[in-house]
Amino acid sequence: MNQMSKRFPLRLNIRNGHVDMTHGSGGRAMTQLIDELFVRHFDNEFLRQGNDQALFTVCGKRLVMSTDGHVVSPLFFPGGDIGSLSVHGTINDVAMSGAMPLYLTAGFILEEGFALAELDKIVVSMARASKDAGVPVITGDTKVVEKGKCDGVFITTTGIGEVPDGLDISGVNARPGDAILVSGFLGDHGVAIMSSRENLKFETQIVSDSAALHGLVADMVKAVPQISCLRDPTRGGLATTLNEISQQSKVGIKLYEDDIPVRGEVAAACELLGLDVLYVANEGKLIAICPNEYADQLLGVMRKHQLGGNAAKIGEVVEDEMGFVTMETGFGGNRIVDWLAGEQLPRIC
Amino acid sequence: MNQMSKRFPLRLNIRNGHVDMTHGSGGRAMTQLIDELFVRHFDNEFLRQGNDQALFTVCGKRLVMSTDGHVVSPLFFPGGDIGSLSVHGTINDVAMSGAMPLYLTAGFILEEGFALAELDKIVVSMARASKDAGVPVITGDTKVVEKGKCDGVFITTTGIGEVPDGLDISGVNARPGDAILVSGFLGDHGVAIMSSRENLKFETQIVSDSAALHGLVADMVKAVPQISCLRDPTRGGLATTLNEISQQSKVGIKLYEDDIPVRGEVAAACELLGLDVLYVANEGKLIAICPNEYADQLLGVMRKHQLGGNAAKIGEVVEDEMGFVTMETGFGGNRIVDWLAGEQLPRIC
Repeated sequence: MNQMSKRFPLRLNIRNGHVDMTHGSGGRAMTQLIDELFVRHFDNEFLRQGNDQALFTVCGKRLVMSTDGHVVSPLFFPGGDIGSLSVHGTINDVAMSGAMPLYLTAGFILEEGFALAELDKIVVSMARASKDAGVPVITGDTKVVEKGKCDGVFITTTGIGEVPDGLDISGVNARPGDAILVSGFLGDHGVAIMSSRENLKFETQIVSDSAALHGLVADMVKAVPQISCLRDPTRGGLATTLNEISQQSKVGIKLYEDDIPVRGEVAAACELLGLDVLYVANEGKLIAICPNEYADQLLGVMRKHQLGGNAAKIGEVVEDEMGFVTMETGFGGNRIVDWLAGEQLPRIC
Repeated sequence: MNQMSKRFPLRLNIRNGHVDMTHGSGGRAMTQLIDELFVRHFDNEFLRQGNDQALFTVCGKRLVMSTDGHVVSPLFFPGGDIGSLSVHGTINDVAMSGAMPLYLTAGFILEEGFALAELDKIVVSMARASKDAGVPVITGDTKVVEKGKCDGVFITTTGIGEVPDGLDISGVNARPGDAILVSGFLGDHGVAIMSSRENLKFETQIVSDSAALHGLVADMVKAVPQISCLRDPTRGGLATTLNEISQQSKVGIKLYEDDIPVRGEVAAACELLGLDVLYVANEGKLIAICPNEYADQLLGVMRKHQLGGNAAKIGEVVEDEMGFVTMETGFGGNRIVDWLAGEQLPRIC
């Protein structure tokens, strides 16, 4: 019996079950669908790496590929749109291996009747994000389905990148004693999307943090090549991402609530919306895990970058074969920070 | 004024226009959407290659990437399903550069309520196609949208492959005098899909030709590295594919109707369904263009392969800067074989 079956006692009901929104949430149900259906059938060493990107070698160079479908709703939101998001999301998944992203591809699925003016805005935004990041979209595909058979536009982007020599960054590498750092305020993207869906107005507008993190990552791995793990806490948020890592590395993780950076207005919006910020998606933040002796140096490098100005150490890796994530709360208590079980925020990316 | 604006006098109405089914048909409207919207904004040398895959270099090795969204309806059809099709389609796009496909990625967009048993069948079929082809699916992504916001399942696959040294295969390379070969019977895929949609029964069931062509391509480029152009005539069929090539290479193309291999039952079904087989999609056929002195040798190699048993020489490249494709008909007349103008077969792949 492996770790997974201990934590997920109920198997997927393939014979009579149906896809539900939780299968796309980034949480427990999605992990189960991926493990019991996709990984089981495709069954290869690359998928078993269990990272957000797959690593392979061409003529001695380590390359990574990553793919991401984007179905965000609404298509335009404060701080971005499906176009820029589809560039940032895939660049970040590539970069979380320590790689420099080289190229992107884009597959569009369009709904009959969708306004060309809207599509134009999305492509302009996508092109700008790609140029700003220096990662060109080199090939693509367009399909059209009948009205009512998709929701405006879905964009699937795939990225390829090259991993610098000397790095070994993976979800399996967290070790007890390692420090856990985050590059800035949590929850901005998810709260921006939810506020725009619910048409909520705050005194200060909450804007998605959608951004390409490969420049920040390049600075980080150059200064501290000993980084053991990088991941961007998107769907399922910080909590789910850390549970994935703790499971992959067979370690526990201890967080300190007071050290987790959250904007006041995001905390307030979460309270209003009934959200736990630990589970809210981010699109321009990363979690870095490194041996504790490098933590201060790494924090210094992160804080110098414009996308890491509010970086903080938020916890540490501890021994725990069961792979629990716990948090010392502001009141001095302790709580288990479990996987996202249901569906907190559908179609967040 | 370039070639394109001569042939497509009306520009896309970006301000007030809408996406319609023709924008996904593989024909003229799709080419226009790609040129006037995607290529214009993304604007880079890779997209301007205008092939079904983009070529780039990593440490001196030429790699290609290609991406393809699959929205075929119905999901299961005679001879395949969306799973196997999504593997074959992208392998073929990679292989049409002469490359050996190395890896695939897969992005799934699932509709809430879709039966897990159906999804399982699709993934099993996809995994089998991938294993048979020796091209593993190394990473993926799953998104779920609400019921009514997609149509069961859409799959976007991306492939990467390595181009052997010494090849220069591209849509810009066709030269007057070159021979045009096709690897077998045309129209099987499109007619299989249409028959299954219309619930038509024929004496002999018409089965999709969906297949991975990289093995055939490997034999071909090994024997005749002088091949100038390879392309799989999918959406828009033979006619549209040859129009693309004639435009890219600034040459004319002359076809001989009597030499184009079409099964009797497919010809009959096309008549019944009101389809012109030249515009019907294929998913396991390729067009090869090579200097005429190599045509017989190449045909011999193709016919030895199980996916090229009915290969035939169907025409030749001629001088014509306007890039017209013409056909000498069975009755000795001549007709222009234009781009697919409207939408013949929606959601064929």
